[in-house]
Amino acid sequence: MTDVKSRRDAVFGAGSTLFYDEPVHIVRGEGVTLHAADGTRFVDMYNNVPSVGHCHPHVVEAVSKQLGTLNVHNRYLHEAILEYGERLIGTHHDGIESVVFSCTGTEANEVALMMARAATGGQGIICTDAAYHGNSTEVRRLNKCTSQTGDIRSVPFPDLFRFDLQHPGADPLTCYLGEIEKTIAGFQKDGVPFAGLLFCPIFANEGLPSIPDGFLPEAARLVREAGGVFICDEVQAGLCRTGNWWGYEIQGVEPDIVSMGKPLGAGMPLAATAGRRDLVENFRKKTRYFNTFASTPAQAAAGNAVLDVIQSEQLLASVTRVGDWLRSALMPFMDRCEPMADVRGDGLFVSIEWVKDRQSREPDMAGARKVVDMLKARGFLTSNAGAYNNNVKLRPPLVFAQQEAEAFIGAFQDVLDHLDH
Amino acid sequence: MTDVKSRRDAVFGAGSTLFYDEPVHIVRGEGVTLHAADGTRFVDMYNNVPSVGHCHPHVVEAVSKQLGTLNVHNRYLHEAILEYGERLIGTHHDGIESVVFSCTGTEANEVALMMARAATGGQGIICTDAAYHGNSTEVRRLNKCTSQTGDIRSVPFPDLFRFDLQHPGADPLTCYLGEIEKTIAGFQKDGVPFAGLLFCPIFANEGLPSIPDGFLPEAARLVREAGGVFICDEVQAGLCRTGNWWGYEIQGVEPDIVSMGKPLGAGMPLAATAGRRDLVENFRKKTRYFNTFASTPAQAAAGNAVLDVIQSEQLLASVTRVGDWLRSALMPFMDRCEPMADVRGDGLFVSIEWVKDRQSREPDMAGARKVVDMLKARGFLTSNAGAYNNNVKLRPPLVFAQQEAEAFIGAFQDVLDHLDH
Repeated sequence: MTDVKSRRDAVFGAGSTLFYDEPVHIVRGEGVTLHAADGTRFVDMYNNVPSVGHCHPHVVEAVSKQLGTLNVHNRYLHEAILEYGERLIGTHHDGIESVVFSCTGTEANEVALMMARAATGGQGIICTDAAYHGNSTEVRRLNKCTSQTGDIRSVPFPDLFRFDLQHPGADPLTCYLGEIEKTIAGFQKDGVPFAGLLFCPIFANEGLPSIPDGFLPEAARLVREAGGVFICDEVQAGLCRTGNWWGYEIQGVEPDIVSMGKPLGAGMPLAATAGRRDLVENFRKKTRYFNTFASTPAQAAAGNAVLDVIQSEQLLASVTRVGDWLRSALMPFMDRCEPMADVRGDGLFVSIEWVKDRQSREPDMAGARKVVDMLKARGFLTSNAGAYNNNVKLRPPLVFAQQEAEAFIGAFQDVLDHLDH
Repeated sequence: MTDVKSRRDAVFGAGSTLFYDEPVHIVRGEGVTLHAADGTRFVDMYNNVPSVGHCHPHVVEAVSKQLGTLNVHNRYLHEAILEYGERLIGTHHDGIESVVFSCTGTEANEVALMMARAATGGQGIICTDAAYHGNSTEVRRLNKCTSQTGDIRSVPFPDLFRFDLQHPGADPLTCYLGEIEKTIAGFQKDGVPFAGLLFCPIFANEGLPSIPDGFLPEAARLVREAGGVFICDEVQAGLCRTGNWWGYEIQGVEPDIVSMGKPLGAGMPLAATAGRRDLVENFRKKTRYFNTFASTPAQAAAGNAVLDVIQSEQLLASVTRVGDWLRSALMPFMDRCEPMADVRGDGLFVSIEWVKDRQSREPDMAGARKVVDMLKARGFLTSNAGAYNNNVKLRPPLVFAQQEAEAFIGAFQDVLDHLDH
């Protein structure tokens, strides 16, 4: 393992991200199981890319067959990608009519920003102060953005967990909407024409905070009144993850533009930006966007196969059922474990908030990391996340089943037993 | 076909690029052959992504096997991608030591720009005035850039074909290097710290112009003297296309950073940015770059399989042999066809310059388009390219063989026969 690590440092250059102090060397995957080189077997409770399970036979067969038949760029006609586009659009609200395919979530957000700016003629974009939307020069500007000047400006992410500490006596909905109004007014004052707002609808990188009822629909209304478009980044929230097709359904908001990525292609690089047909056509006309590796037969095969499995294995219902059970089984541990101060999320996306004490609610990153390491030692791969990196994040493939959830609860209880002593 | 086209306009939004006035509907590919839905069979003389031929069995098998074994992100250790990185680096000059994988050429150029800027602390980038480097917000700024202000500025692309018309009596090398010196001086004058220069080493989008001997090495010297880094975009030029492993070898320049894309993965989205280890490590440290779909086992399988085929089928030698024959067989047609004013290129990348008359050398885009359409009617898929879109561009998969080259010459002769009448 040391050998692989030092070889990696030479090939990639030191500083390439690895999970865990003692990284794992994975050689095989199936369903929610990952096998390491030394024979260790892990339950995967982190990966959302192999959304229908690692190496799902239906996906592998569909993609392999297509790779052996044709895989070429999209300036020739091909039907499978149109079928996939229609099926993907069909899972969205009626205002999502056309789609631009790309390869990564970063590219999908690049397209979303360009589409919003092309539609409005504006430049000003609002994001939160603890988001991650990708790795390009432009999209990086949105990550943990603290700017209140220029064309990209942030608002504090909504978070009911610490709201009363930060704003005693205030009303959360009024307060967070006020921040958006203030930022829109700031753009107007500074002569920066407004283009829109881009949020992950479940604020995944912010730590899956509980948010005020009605926040997203009201935010969308403010944005539209100011001439902007409302964009949801569904790269993490989408494709059944929350027990809904799309994260925006939780609050019943209907975004003008959605960007999608990670789980769509089960590991085949596949991302998409969709919106009203007029928004998409205006974007195409103004940019002549073309992406060599996107809208290909291989992307179509992967995307269609993933939708097939979601339907045939009824994953939407199972995500809700198993996710609800998992959260309800975790909740009681809060009574015996002071640092475990909140259990949040929807469907198979769970965040456990780890704090130094319940009074101050001071984030305990080291504590959360320790839990993650102890879970790993018990065969469950999870990770840390959130604005303060103090959340234990559970986000298994969508095929994660009741029996695995029960095994996890056993391991989690054992971790708490050991933490107590 | 009309049906597929109107369905496409709805799903993608009208304005998504298609080749040819009457688009082709491709359903199957093998080697250099593409089969259309109506049974028509085409020789592919356009595609550089299926570099080792459409649906090469070795590539299909390697990728399929890997998809059925494991495909997961790169924050776990995995050996195949390290092997691929080592092999890819091994094809470069000694100063290319480490690599950052991504999914598309756009992303590879994003990384190259960030790496150059992180290394130098500068922002100023020089490109040509007729390049295409990708589709993100930042990289788009380089495309057909005409700016002489701000942090991205262009120089006229080198072109011996029209040089004497544009600069009577001048020396081309002195003139084009002078433009670079002037632009570097402009950055200094305006207080924009210089970061580097990014060229496609064969100026593919500019139209594969013949360029002065020594231009690239001298340009690299000027860039380095000014504290910048010299970047080659090998997305089109690289991986044996020119009969060299990399386009920069033609002029014997050794870039500090190279970006790579299209042909690497035979259709699997796979791109890379490589450079000295210190440049790569500095980039990683400053950006914490991570790309979910990159450096995966599937990318490794595709990349390794492509390198296997290049070696086992000795494609480097065959590209040179067939490409040289193709150009030498095309040359004599210039004697009988006034508009066919130049035949350029290296290896299996050929540009035929189409002009209104030899005196003015005025570009004839319509003429070049007509040739492309007539070649298509004869079963050969090519395209138009170049700064004036008046080049007939030939860029078949690397496995394009002597017998196909001979068949193409027959078809080309037939096109000229029909043009004469």
